[in-house]
Amino acid sequence: MSRILFALTLAIVAAASSPAAGREEPLPSWVDGPTKRAILEFVGRVSDEAGPGFVPVADRIAVFDNDGTLWCEQPVYVQAVFIRDRVRALAERHPGWRETPPYSAVLDGDRDALAALGEKGVAELVSATHAGMTVEEFRRIAEDWIALAEHPRFDRPYTGCVYQPMLELLGYLRSHGFKTFIVSGGGVEFMRPWTGPVYGIPPEQVVGSTIRTAYREVDGRAELVRLPEIDFIDDKAGKPVGIGRHIGRRPIAAFGNSDGDYEMLRYATEGPGPRLGLIVHHTDADREYAYDRDSPVGRLDRALDEAADRGWVVADMARDWARVFPPPSSADA
Amino acid sequence: MSRILFALTLAIVAAASSPAAGREEPLPSWVDGPTKRAILEFVGRVSDEAGPGFVPVADRIAVFDNDGTLWCEQPVYVQAVFIRDRVRALAERHPGWRETPPYSAVLDGDRDALAALGEKGVAELVSATHAGMTVEEFRRIAEDWIALAEHPRFDRPYTGCVYQPMLELLGYLRSHGFKTFIVSGGGVEFMRPWTGPVYGIPPEQVVGSTIRTAYREVDGRAELVRLPEIDFIDDKAGKPVGIGRHIGRRPIAAFGNSDGDYEMLRYATEGPGPRLGLIVHHTDADREYAYDRDSPVGRLDRALDEAADRGWVVADMARDWARVFPPPSSADA
Ligand SMILES: [Ca+2]
Ligand SMILES: [Ca+2]
Repeated sequence: MSRILFALTLAIVAAASSPAAGREEPLPSWVDGPTKRAILEFVGRVSDEAGPGFVPVADRIAVFDNDGTLWCEQPVYVQAVFIRDRVRALAERHPGWRETPPYSAVLDGDRDALAALGEKGVAELVSATHAGMTVEEFRRIAEDWIALAEHPRFDRPYTGCVYQPMLELLGYLRSHGFKTFIVSGGGVEFMRPWTGPVYGIPPEQVVGSTIRTAYREVDGRAELVRLPEIDFIDDKAGKPVGIGRHIGRRPIAAFGNSDGDYEMLRYATEGPGPRLGLIVHHTDADREYAYDRDSPVGRLDRALDEAADRGWVVADMARDWARVFPPPSSADA
Repeated sequence: MSRILFALTLAIVAAASSPAAGREEPLPSWVDGPTKRAILEFVGRVSDEAGPGFVPVADRIAVFDNDGTLWCEQPVYVQAVFIRDRVRALAERHPGWRETPPYSAVLDGDRDALAALGEKGVAELVSATHAGMTVEEFRRIAEDWIALAEHPRFDRPYTGCVYQPMLELLGYLRSHGFKTFIVSGGGVEFMRPWTGPVYGIPPEQVVGSTIRTAYREVDGRAELVRLPEIDFIDDKAGKPVGIGRHIGRRPIAAFGNSDGDYEMLRYATEGPGPRLGLIVHHTDADREYAYDRDSPVGRLDRALDEAADRGWVVADMARDWARVFPPPSSADA
């Protein structure tokens, strides 16, 4: 319960800070400098009705990657921890898993075996842990898990390991007529239960990876049932595809942190008129983590190389962010 | 140009009528009677903060079928006319089509051959006419076509053959905090160019059938290209699947007109709290068309049989609608 309160408090803080920020000091957790100026200048141009860069409100679409862009993805993706916990919980009903890969790798915490899983092993783990229930049952499972799980280093719920500067940016864009979407490689139903209270982004504005679902009658009631089959991977070249299907327009702003966002950044920024592409560069081992080209999680290499040529802004976490996480909440007790 | 003005005028009429309608005379084109009362009573219950049926604004999701629910689908689906016109236009580049089914059936206007096309033939026609360009190019093609095409009986653009009572209903629901979505078997990119001006529904709130797309570099620019392969059919049991993937919540209200909406109506109405399922029954051959159980277009049989037991409201067009289409506009010249 305190976790939910904590998440709600964050949302209230974000909501409260942004409209005021629109008038007084916008983006207080961003250090004054070229990165912040690039954001303010872009928003100013598209909102200036008399200017040549004006964009009607209906076209002010901004897309955000989630892992590593809106919340912490280190030391491992949050959804990977969820999968581990689900495998542990389900193992009671599947005694054979202890000797059967890929489950045994998870249950043994065998890092080498996990790293060698490959796409097929990961798909099997996702199917075993994310399917076989209605979508509403899965949402409750995800919601219950996120309410209790804690980040191993920061000792707060994962929903408290979101980036305060990005919360302010979401609010700032919305206060200037932008519609904000998440476009993430993560499972869409893993995110939807909490993106509303944490980011102010409703379920229908979350685009993510999906498994197949089917309409079924369950105990005489119409339900959507989750099937053990991957439907769509919303990553890399899949991100523009997911955007096209779901949003139906080329966004004018995109925010990412890894090569998984390369195609989305290009798609968003290669249209007419003002465009903003921004990469969150993790450079801050003290306050969060420092990683890019060699990281197995959130690898950032090609997008970093091409950023300058393509006009993408690189936000240096150590230099550009006055604060990383939201202030501790009294509800976080 | 006059067509676009006409569509815009409709939208302005709808927008202007609804907020006033919320206060003075709601739904003026609906005849007073049990159908109108059922709608008003439902909206009243979910909006009454003190009542037991209150639904928070975030959960006020309403889904609308398009063909036969929001606009006229007789004598043939509008998109079928679009396909015919596209085949005719493309036939210049494909001289062999004149002798090759399924194209020959379209070019000859052979009704029997068209009726016998089957799923494979239709898929081939869709692939040939809807793929091979970027999504932005296709949108322009659809936009240009809808601006000029006219209904064969009513002598006005198809976007003028929308139902005035349903435009008022869309506005009335939105003025009570509802988010309105289209959930149609039609192609999503065929609808998106005009649902904004005509229905007040933005592209990201249109769920429909899709063909596969791929991220490609075209002349050095990032594009989404439409591939000749059906991706998803948003009809029958596909409608709840599309709703789950796109909206991520069970709607509390659903509006349809055929057995293609049966599963969507069940999914929307079989949740807790107040629910509204409504079927538009085409009973008015004088002002529009009269058809149900035996119609190849918009067949309504099982959903009509089960409506009373499931608590679905059946709107009888002849009895419940004071007016069918919007008033002729001065822009429609
Ligand atoms: Ca990421
Ligand atoms: Ca229909």
